[in-house]
Amino acid sequence: MTRVGIINVTGYAGSELARILHNHPDVDLVSVTGRSAAGKELSEVFPHLREASMTITPEIEESVDFVFSALPHAASAEKLKPFIDDGVPAIDISADFRLKDLPTYERWYKVEHPCPNHIEAAVYGLPELHRSEIRQTKLVANPGCFPTGTVLAMAPAVQAGIVEQKVISDCKSGVSGAGRSASMEYGFSELNDNMLAYALGGHRHEPEMTQELSALSSSGEVQVTFVPHLAPMTRGILGTHYTTLSKEVTQAQVNDIYRDFYADEPFARVVPAPPATKQTWGSNDCLLFPVVNESTGILVVVSALDNLVKGAAGAGVQNMNIMLGLNETAGLEALPVYP
Amino acid sequence: MTRVGIINVTGYAGSELARILHNHPDVDLVSVTGRSAAGKELSEVFPHLREASMTITPEIEESVDFVFSALPHAASAEKLKPFIDDGVPAIDISADFRLKDLPTYERWYKVEHPCPNHIEAAVYGLPELHRSEIRQTKLVANPGCFPTGTVLAMAPAVQAGIVEQKVISDCKSGVSGAGRSASMEYGFSELNDNMLAYALGGHRHEPEMTQELSALSSSGEVQVTFVPHLAPMTRGILGTHYTTLSKEVTQAQVNDIYRDFYADEPFARVVPAPPATKQTWGSNDCLLFPVVNESTGILVVVSALDNLVKGAAGAGVQNMNIMLGLNETAGLEALPVYP
Amino acid sequence: MTRVGIINVTGYAGSELARILHNHPDVDLVSVTGRSAAGKELSEVFPHLREASMTITPEIEESVDFVFSALPHAASAEKLKPFIDDGVPAIDISADFRLKDLPTYERWYKVEHPCPNHIEAAVYGLPELHRSEIRQTKLVANPGCFPTGTVLAMAPAVQAGIVEQKVISDCKSGVSGAGRSASMEYGFSELNDNMLAYALGGHRHEPEMTQELSALSSSGEVQVTFVPHLAPMTRGILGTHYTTLSKEVTQAQVNDIYRDFYADEPFARVVPAPPATKQTWGSNDCLLFPVVNESTGILVVVSALDNLVKGAAGAGVQNMNIMLGLNETAGLEALPVYP
Amino acid sequence: MTRVGIINVTGYAGSELARILHNHPDVDLVSVTGRSAAGKELSEVFPHLREASMTITPEIEESVDFVFSALPHAASAEKLKPFIDDGVPAIDISADFRLKDLPTYERWYKVEHPCPNHIEAAVYGLPELHRSEIRQTKLVANPGCFPTGTVLAMAPAVQAGIVEQKVISDCKSGVSGAGRSASMEYGFSELNDNMLAYALGGHRHEPEMTQELSALSSSGEVQVTFVPHLAPMTRGILGTHYTTLSKEVTQAQVNDIYRDFYADEPFARVVPAPPATKQTWGSNDCLLFPVVNESTGILVVVSALDNLVKGAAGAGVQNMNIMLGLNETAGLEALPVYP
Repeated sequence: MTRVGIINVTGYAGSELARILHNHPDVDLVSVTGRSAAGKELSEVFPHLREASMTITPEIEESVDFVFSALPHAASAEKLKPFIDDGVPAIDISADFRLKDLPTYERWYKVEHPCPNHIEAAVYGLPELHRSEIRQTKLVANPGCFPTGTVLAMAPAVQAGIVEQKVISDCKSGVSGAGRSASMEYGFSELNDNMLAYALGGHRHEPEMTQELSALSSSGEVQVTFVPHLAPMTRGILGTHYTTLSKEVTQAQVNDIYRDFYADEPFARVVPAPPATKQTWGSNDCLLFPVVNESTGILVVVSALDNLVKGAAGAGVQNMNIMLGLNETAGLEALPVYP
Repeated sequence: MTRVGIINVTGYAGSELARILHNHPDVDLVSVTGRSAAGKELSEVFPHLREASMTITPEIEESVDFVFSALPHAASAEKLKPFIDDGVPAIDISADFRLKDLPTYERWYKVEHPCPNHIEAAVYGLPELHRSEIRQTKLVANPGCFPTGTVLAMAPAVQAGIVEQKVISDCKSGVSGAGRSASMEYGFSELNDNMLAYALGGHRHEPEMTQELSALSSSGEVQVTFVPHLAPMTRGILGTHYTTLSKEVTQAQVNDIYRDFYADEPFARVVPAPPATKQTWGSNDCLLFPVVNESTGILVVVSALDNLVKGAAGAGVQNMNIMLGLNETAGLEALPVYP
Repeated sequence: MTRVGIINVTGYAGSELARILHNHPDVDLVSVTGRSAAGKELSEVFPHLREASMTITPEIEESVDFVFSALPHAASAEKLKPFIDDGVPAIDISADFRLKDLPTYERWYKVEHPCPNHIEAAVYGLPELHRSEIRQTKLVANPGCFPTGTVLAMAPAVQAGIVEQKVISDCKSGVSGAGRSASMEYGFSELNDNMLAYALGGHRHEPEMTQELSALSSSGEVQVTFVPHLAPMTRGILGTHYTTLSKEVTQAQVNDIYRDFYADEPFARVVPAPPATKQTWGSNDCLLFPVVNESTGILVVVSALDNLVKGAAGAGVQNMNIMLGLNETAGLEALPVYP
Repeated sequence: MTRVGIINVTGYAGSELARILHNHPDVDLVSVTGRSAAGKELSEVFPHLREASMTITPEIEESVDFVFSALPHAASAEKLKPFIDDGVPAIDISADFRLKDLPTYERWYKVEHPCPNHIEAAVYGLPELHRSEIRQTKLVANPGCFPTGTVLAMAPAVQAGIVEQKVISDCKSGVSGAGRSASMEYGFSELNDNMLAYALGGHRHEPEMTQELSALSSSGEVQVTFVPHLAPMTRGILGTHYTTLSKEVTQAQVNDIYRDFYADEPFARVVPAPPATKQTWGSNDCLLFPVVNESTGILVVVSALDNLVKGAAGAGVQNMNIMLGLNETAGLEALPVYP
């Protein structure tokens, strides 16, 4: 059994890691940290984790074979640094190691990077694109929740060279994506039965989308216009993506391109009807539905995933499984909870 | 036109007062205050009040003929004191003048009362019970949102002497009752699709219920076991009340008692089917539905109201109308918004 | 007082018409019809309309000076025909008279038009584009809920000639847009905390968007790629619109174009921050927020409205006011109910 | 591996059985039936069951070692009869075998019982009360969702003889309890952000509560006044129960009575803070929180459970495990999905 620790278990990504790892057949969760909650039992903070309870400590207290950090960016790289330096395999749920270009990171995140020397070795943890590199690295940068859906939605078309270099990503996110913290903005009374767009001046997840899609393109940079929206739901991201077809392709050809691209993937699934976010609730699936709009020549691709699972903790466990040479789906077999 | 001010417009009761008063035919809203929002336009804080905008000031800046305070308790009485002393008619949305017994107030609210000398003159602002006193006072204590439904639900039965002195009040409240403030506890992700009971050790609204129902009873104190619940909705309180019938009465007799009690009331309505909270959305109605359970001898009374209207701002405007000798329903004629 | 009738009051558009007309100062609602509900009181079907109750009849029973139809398409034109023939001014909430091109209507709606001879005289009831024609017609085709937001969002840019002829309209609608009928698909358990795209093969509101935007363009037809989504909320449409700028314009210039276009409009408002649907709840406002994405050269315009008010019944009353020469905002002054 | 069949997989209890059984280590789901969906793949009807798909047939098509019926009452007993007669162990999710008294069944359910001769042998499947009988029977009547919470909430107090014989059960249920069918009443637009009481004239689950609690009492029949409510959530029942203490007991004594009663139970848990329904989402837990109200002498017990798991399918699998001599928690170990 691999001994695993979670740095900052007290957010939604952290608690979701604890939930999934508790039932994982090949690992033991041995240490969880928190800041203000240090000293409390995990079940005091998260009553649903009553069966997985242990004391929250300020630092990782047991020797661990594997570490996750679910801290915010900057703090995350800083806390992970000693583990990385010691050769402990690590997954960073934050954005610190996702962007290969340091100035891009520092422009979007407005901080100096705490350990830029580890950026190069880090692998962007989207197994559908980087499985073999993940297998060989000791540091995975877990993708952002929005880029996971958008990159998976557009990757087959971009790689196949059937679309132009401009993509519109209109994403509708559940509120848990905003994290677990005291705020009025994300209060129930403010957001219930309500919907709005935000970050219209630019969102930090956009450079990830650009980086990953551009790498797949043989025609240079892919430009993404990304507009996130808050939807009155707890979990889930529904992404609707629009791009102009650069050559005439039929719906059947597009279906083939998408099905081939994801043929062997356990969690990226091309589905036969428009997917709903609830069909992924609590599961690691990303559902994809491409449609050719013949009258306008636009390719529309809909994606649906659970932002806390495939968009965060589940992807982390999938990456861990690959890094440790375990069955890639271990701990992730539970079906979505619906309705 | 009566010139009206609102102290602390930046909570949900305050903004709801502004919404209702904006369309009131007989009053002008001339001054609104806020603390952290002072200097901002009302429409910056509440975009839906764009048509009613004015600058938020730290203190009431215009001479006013009538004042509402929507501050929290203690702070409210303190800010109202100079107005009361000057003879400006006032309505306190907070709890400061509701309880006639000072020690009871200080035990439940855990503060020293800022101006106890005004308690006696204050009238408990439930027009259905105290209309003639409201007409003659210059200080109204607006009832709590929970007591409004519970007292209206039980008053006819208690006054008629058909029930025992013990009442169970099981109330389900929308989250806006918790106010407008930064908190994790009332975050969307925490409360959406979720339900819980709280304040099981006792809630501050219970002594109001006891005070008002006991005053109607010819058999001594009425004891209320009150359990509030948070329901995943923005507005609305559904109250389900249980008490043992002390004499044999039929459903028809109970219907008569309730219909007679509220025969001339514009806002307390006995309805022919179980009411739903959404049927009161944005309106000043309190819907009541009494049922005799013949097999157990229990009288069940369901009440439904909008906690921000009949449970706060609407009741305040109704009280103001009575105090000023206006049409009691002025400004309150809009039908509920449904669905 | 103008005597008004509503054909088919028992859907959400019909009941919303009754709600708004009840408080209208210049009209009397004198007759309402329904099919299965004929013979019932309006308040039995809609308890929130208790103050506006009257008996639902199978046909309009009183002589009326003005008639609304809220029937589904085809049935609507058929029932309106005798009124139109008699010269009674009428507003059709359905789609029957919206499309000027009969074959387009018959292709999308898959029915033969019941009275094609009235199409030409009908005016598309978007006052922001057609006010003077509305003033002079006796037959208004009330716009669809989606086209209202999309056309208002794109009209200033299209007319100003600053954008290309392709528009993407990504709309998120509350479930009341699906109407009031027995279905599993729109059940609470199916849609709560869930989100999905639908009509990916084409939606009937798209030809309306194309018709109205193309008429404003000096460069030929505007092509709209329209994808509607169901969001877990009752009311509201949030539209996010994307189009490529055809010339270099600054954010300030775009703001001027939009503010000038809607300078005298009572209900179309250019707002200073991204609008949320809840800010329009129960009101006739359409909020608009244009943003230039400088790095991609895309103009993003967000729109928010209440689908049952500005998207249906409220627009109908606004049109009626114009047709009757009344104050255009009569009956529509109530502020949005928020939160 | 035990070969299991589900009769009527197309409701929410049926699909939840399929979800849970798919990951059960000791059984194989080999046959599922449906009526209108016969011939379809399970994944067409329930896309979240894509990994568990199989063809839905009109009748059980494989020989099975164990059968669940999730049909409505009457139809259920009729379809189960041949299996029971053949000695196939069976669990009936419907109400057909819950009530020991035939006239009570026929009065509440208004049908003639299709196979009354099997009632006596059937065991009421609440393992916390009847584990040893469940172990020995071939026919389990799975409890109703409301009685599960109410009986577990009151059983310790009733058995300990500390309360009077009258219990008030105020239950708030998620809408999935109403099943999966086309209806307007349970439409999203009708129930979102809304709450109401129903069945105020009596609900079919009341005689189950009375039967089970009376059997635990040494003082005769326990009378239950049961009022169910619809809450705007998909899953979950929050029950708040009120009964008068018949002797003076302290909170500590009550805690001991409850903890002792459930000391060895894997799923009935006495918790240290008021439970929220979301803490049980997708899990088989029933959370219990007893509170003594010292000023009124009332014992309040709050219960929380997932109506589709511990209130239906999960309880069914727990009963199956007991009947088959498997580990009682097999297939039920997944932690709740929160938030």
